[in-house]
Amino acid sequence: MIYFDSDYTAGAHPEVLDALCATNNLHTVGYGCDSYTESAKNLIRQACGTEDARVFLLVGGTQTNATVIDGILARHEGVLAAESGHIAVHESGAIEACGHKVLTLPHHQGKVKAEDVKLFIDEFYRDETFEHMVAPGMLYISFPTEYGTVYTLKELEQLSEVCHNADIPLYIDGARLAYGLAAEGGDVTLQDIARLADVFYIGGTKVGALFGEAVVVTNPKLLNHFTPLIKQHGALMAKGRLLGVQFEALFKGNLYFEIGKKAVAQALKIKEAFTSRGYTSIVDSTTNQQFFLLPNSLIDHLRSNHISFENWGVRGAEQTTVRFVTGWATTQSDIDALIALL
Amino acid sequence: MIYFDSDYTAGAHPEVLDALCATNNLHTVGYGCDSYTESAKNLIRQACGTEDARVFLLVGGTQTNATVIDGILARHEGVLAAESGHIAVHESGAIEACGHKVLTLPHHQGKVKAEDVKLFIDEFYRDETFEHMVAPGMLYISFPTEYGTVYTLKELEQLSEVCHNADIPLYIDGARLAYGLAAEGGDVTLQDIARLADVFYIGGTKVGALFGEAVVVTNPKLLNHFTPLIKQHGALMAKGRLLGVQFEALFKGNLYFEIGKKAVAQALKIKEAFTSRGYTSIVDSTTNQQFFLLPNSLIDHLRSNHISFENWGVRGAEQTTVRFVTGWATTQSDIDALIALL
Amino acid sequence: MIYFDSDYTAGAHPEVLDALCATNNLHTVGYGCDSYTESAKNLIRQACGTEDARVFLLVGGTQTNATVIDGILARHEGVLAAESGHIAVHESGAIEACGHKVLTLPHHQGKVKAEDVKLFIDEFYRDETFEHMVAPGMLYISFPTEYGTVYTLKELEQLSEVCHNADIPLYIDGARLAYGLAAEGGDVTLQDIARLADVFYIGGTKVGALFGEAVVVTNPKLLNHFTPLIKQHGALMAKGRLLGVQFEALFKGNLYFEIGKKAVAQALKIKEAFTSRGYTSIVDSTTNQQFFLLPNSLIDHLRSNHISFENWGVRGAEQTTVRFVTGWATTQSDIDALIALL
Amino acid sequence: MIYFDSDYTAGAHPEVLDALCATNNLHTVGYGCDSYTESAKNLIRQACGTEDARVFLLVGGTQTNATVIDGILARHEGVLAAESGHIAVHESGAIEACGHKVLTLPHHQGKVKAEDVKLFIDEFYRDETFEHMVAPGMLYISFPTEYGTVYTLKELEQLSEVCHNADIPLYIDGARLAYGLAAEGGDVTLQDIARLADVFYIGGTKVGALFGEAVVVTNPKLLNHFTPLIKQHGALMAKGRLLGVQFEALFKGNLYFEIGKKAVAQALKIKEAFTSRGYTSIVDSTTNQQFFLLPNSLIDHLRSNHISFENWGVRGAEQTTVRFVTGWATTQSDIDALIALL
Repeated sequence: MIYFDSDYTAGAHPEVLDALCATNNLHTVGYGCDSYTESAKNLIRQACGTEDARVFLLVGGTQTNATVIDGILARHEGVLAAESGHIAVHESGAIEACGHKVLTLPHHQGKVKAEDVKLFIDEFYRDETFEHMVAPGMLYISFPTEYGTVYTLKELEQLSEVCHNADIPLYIDGARLAYGLAAEGGDVTLQDIARLADVFYIGGTKVGALFGEAVVVTNPKLLNHFTPLIKQHGALMAKGRLLGVQFEALFKGNLYFEIGKKAVAQALKIKEAFTSRGYTSIVDSTTNQQFFLLPNSLIDHLRSNHISFENWGVRGAEQTTVRFVTGWATTQSDIDALIALL
Repeated sequence: MIYFDSDYTAGAHPEVLDALCATNNLHTVGYGCDSYTESAKNLIRQACGTEDARVFLLVGGTQTNATVIDGILARHEGVLAAESGHIAVHESGAIEACGHKVLTLPHHQGKVKAEDVKLFIDEFYRDETFEHMVAPGMLYISFPTEYGTVYTLKELEQLSEVCHNADIPLYIDGARLAYGLAAEGGDVTLQDIARLADVFYIGGTKVGALFGEAVVVTNPKLLNHFTPLIKQHGALMAKGRLLGVQFEALFKGNLYFEIGKKAVAQALKIKEAFTSRGYTSIVDSTTNQQFFLLPNSLIDHLRSNHISFENWGVRGAEQTTVRFVTGWATTQSDIDALIALL
Repeated sequence: MIYFDSDYTAGAHPEVLDALCATNNLHTVGYGCDSYTESAKNLIRQACGTEDARVFLLVGGTQTNATVIDGILARHEGVLAAESGHIAVHESGAIEACGHKVLTLPHHQGKVKAEDVKLFIDEFYRDETFEHMVAPGMLYISFPTEYGTVYTLKELEQLSEVCHNADIPLYIDGARLAYGLAAEGGDVTLQDIARLADVFYIGGTKVGALFGEAVVVTNPKLLNHFTPLIKQHGALMAKGRLLGVQFEALFKGNLYFEIGKKAVAQALKIKEAFTSRGYTSIVDSTTNQQFFLLPNSLIDHLRSNHISFENWGVRGAEQTTVRFVTGWATTQSDIDALIALL
Repeated sequence: MIYFDSDYTAGAHPEVLDALCATNNLHTVGYGCDSYTESAKNLIRQACGTEDARVFLLVGGTQTNATVIDGILARHEGVLAAESGHIAVHESGAIEACGHKVLTLPHHQGKVKAEDVKLFIDEFYRDETFEHMVAPGMLYISFPTEYGTVYTLKELEQLSEVCHNADIPLYIDGARLAYGLAAEGGDVTLQDIARLADVFYIGGTKVGALFGEAVVVTNPKLLNHFTPLIKQHGALMAKGRLLGVQFEALFKGNLYFEIGKKAVAQALKIKEAFTSRGYTSIVDSTTNQQFFLLPNSLIDHLRSNHISFENWGVRGAEQTTVRFVTGWATTQSDIDALIALL
């Protein structure tokens, strides 16, 4: 079977696994106070071009979103997000479980518009009953989005400006950040992200780590007592150095970025293969997730030939939207095998 | 440096790491729906002698405690625990963050007495104002306790009986379960735990896994919608098979139990070495954690000779309580080196 | 100034106030364990035609919604509601503060359709990722709605059926219940409400009481430990008999229903006066709240002549939507004065 | 029957009730934006000698404690309180339901010692694992305490100093504040309270109002978005002017303080009557609550002669601790009747 289901179907990138194996028998102190973690944090700060940023290593994405948002919002505040945002849809109510409403904005292929953010905030404070409503306390966006799209640098700058004019932090969910940074035609760098966001996270789970997400806090006013909150959320690993070792492997060279580039290039080949044959790409994704509306006959044909991929929503009568995802473990022969079947 | 700080200072037991390496490049579906996880669950059910138990694999202990307790208690209920219990002290308020009070009972070297549980419940319902107070909704105990002590089978049976007479579940935190089952003079088996508890977890992090805790639910009335709650608590791993692979390695043979036995035997050697030299063992621990009241001069001597271990509480003027812990990675030469310095 | 701002601008109906004054100097036990409260509960049960219903008296509406919903939902569940529902918009996130998402449905002049509820539930469970999403655990509707509209008996029966087929409770927010029961052309009785809902509340604050909401639980499986939850939510009055005295006054005769009838009749006169003069009634409200789109010139004219009423949303450039509300304290001369100015 | 059960067994003081009746038919805007509320707030500020304090009127005590504490604490923090404090015992877990642990201190007849507060904080930060524990984020004390005792001015100053040195707010629960200010031998004024606390509340429910608690925030850094939080907690009255009218009645003259003085004088007469006859006063209460250890024969004798009062705890075999409470409605003849029976 060849898997295009997601970017977390295989284990760790070999270089990451090697680092884990090489350090396995060493002893370190726990809870991320070890030297591997410190080294990883320094490498991340360097890559971000932010000497003063604080970096925290957590285990998974839902957990990271909940912990960060819980740590930022005041009790009367909610988080603005696209109605398609992961926190709005697919985290089993983790944000609400922390006591906060997700205030949804219209999405445009997964993206929110700065003007919509501004409009929401303006209208909120013009409403005489605003104290009876949930105040927008921060903005959540994902980069790339759940649809594989990315913001342009200009769009990010506009979002950042709107947020800072309204005195609310901008938080970027980078579960698949490497793929967003490698987006075809994209003009956003990691340094841009670090400059424009108040907090963001660099996803490891979907980019070659076994698990792990690195939260980068660039706004010094935020999350000043974050470690106890990480512990409270059950996100503080006893063997914390496992996170350090993995992020060190990803960031001591260019591995993190290379994984992104390779997978995006592969995904674009898949896109080209489908669209050149007349199939519809339903979203203008420029990253490692591609969405097509395919005839059920083709879908069945591919699956019966050991190509695994997910329906995106419910199977239709004649055609169905499906998703193909590439990752560190996708090989050229995987791509060739898929294309040969089209 | 030789580490006796804790049982999570090294990585995974080689057999566990080998299993992770051997499966690393395989692709599976995510979120624990893979065959490794299914196999691990079956092995755990077999080891517990409970065909019908439901098993869930989570990442860490604090997370597991919070998710289980959150899933069991009604909104007006709290959880009974020893005042020394991990949830009462060292989880940064994770239980309260879920909305529930930890109702503390006196502890006896970390253990609670069935009569104290009964007394609490009886007095609670005799109080005319009980509806203004937090109702005891379940009992939390740890096996072994935070002091390395274990309950006898009879004590466990009494606790189980008191709980079931009061119609509240008994939950056992088995972060270090293997060491408790291997306790010197202990008479409790895994099957006993499964028979007497309504829910418990089998700790992996501290027993040779990189991470992972296996929740076993034997009471069919409890936690019937646990997966969304695990997701909500950020405890559902994307690469869920990592947990399955590790627990399969621990339970396909006797590895889990052997790790416990070996480390307990080592810890008892340490205990004998200290006490035979006249040093005070402050708790009657029969497992892999040993607590001694030592002269500061000896403490300093050991540390300057590369023996690492933790103060248990604050350093005293002349003597200090310290903890020595063994684990899968503790070697005979570690023990020898320590003893040679006494 | 003549107030049409809301139904809570004046104090209590004279009969309610008289009852409070007549009992003021008496002593009773606290927290609602007094005989007035017991009497009020019996009168409410009689009015509802439900001998076995449990009745609880709380102070305010937001509090009541939060306490009931918090008491019903499991941790992984959310509450379905119209996107215009009070809990979705105007309770400062009280539901989310209890940990639960408000799952919104399209509204039709404030009402939800049974088919939309069914569709939501069906699609939810057809989605393979449903365990990563918030499960619909109950349905919240308001009667009358925030737009003054009411469900027909048939519509209520359909909603009740859809809910019970899906095994989720139907909860009706009756903050203005008396007005809904008196709706022009309405065919729903209090007994119907009690028969079709699992839980509902009879609003007192907006129907002649100083404050107070009576929760009626007809489903014996729900809210079996509600008193401690009421206390936990800060909704258990020390001088609980104040609630009993007021609801006794409202329900010992027909006062509750008469307040509703009178105010609805007055509101319909206002509606007729506006619409017969060509002004637009923007919602087909048949109860005590009426919404008109008026020229700003008329709005200013009315206000400069001491008629007070609220904008419904933001003032427009030339015309603005406004709301007129009647209540127990609205007099015939108030109506006459308003109409004379049109 | 003559009631000494509590200070909330009767309705409102006649002057408070008169004010409610006199204003009943007037219309005002809702939610506390009316002129009566503004007037009450000004009178309270004057009485407190704090021009800049912000004042908020809520309905009940448990609600007030939960809303204030929820608004002050960061997510990783808990509230220090005497183990006998109302929030630690008798609020059905309202604080934990907001996500926060109540960190208990030993009590001395209901009071906490400044040195114990300091010790707790010092030891907390000396513990290397403090980030795994719940940080002390504020101090809660009650004045008078649940045992009827009061702090001296010096004790309050010490508590205030300890708190401010540790940079945590001091919050005073004044549910029975008037009685504390009138304590026999007491030297604390309302202005002292306002000067030394960061936040406190002036209890109305137990001091002559039907209901109502006035939160006074003197620390300008705290609770800057308190109104939406009050709404979120279900504590924002629709007919908010009811609170304003009552507190205006209590504070436009000396009524609030006079109620306190009268009831304390009566309680001390009761105390003198019991102790002069050789009965044991078990707490050195100088306020309106008195606690005696009485023979069951006397208890039964009094009750059979229509004297109502509460057991304090469970009835003993031969003698039982009981509580007598006076309030605005206690008359001289009530006192005489009681004493005549001794």
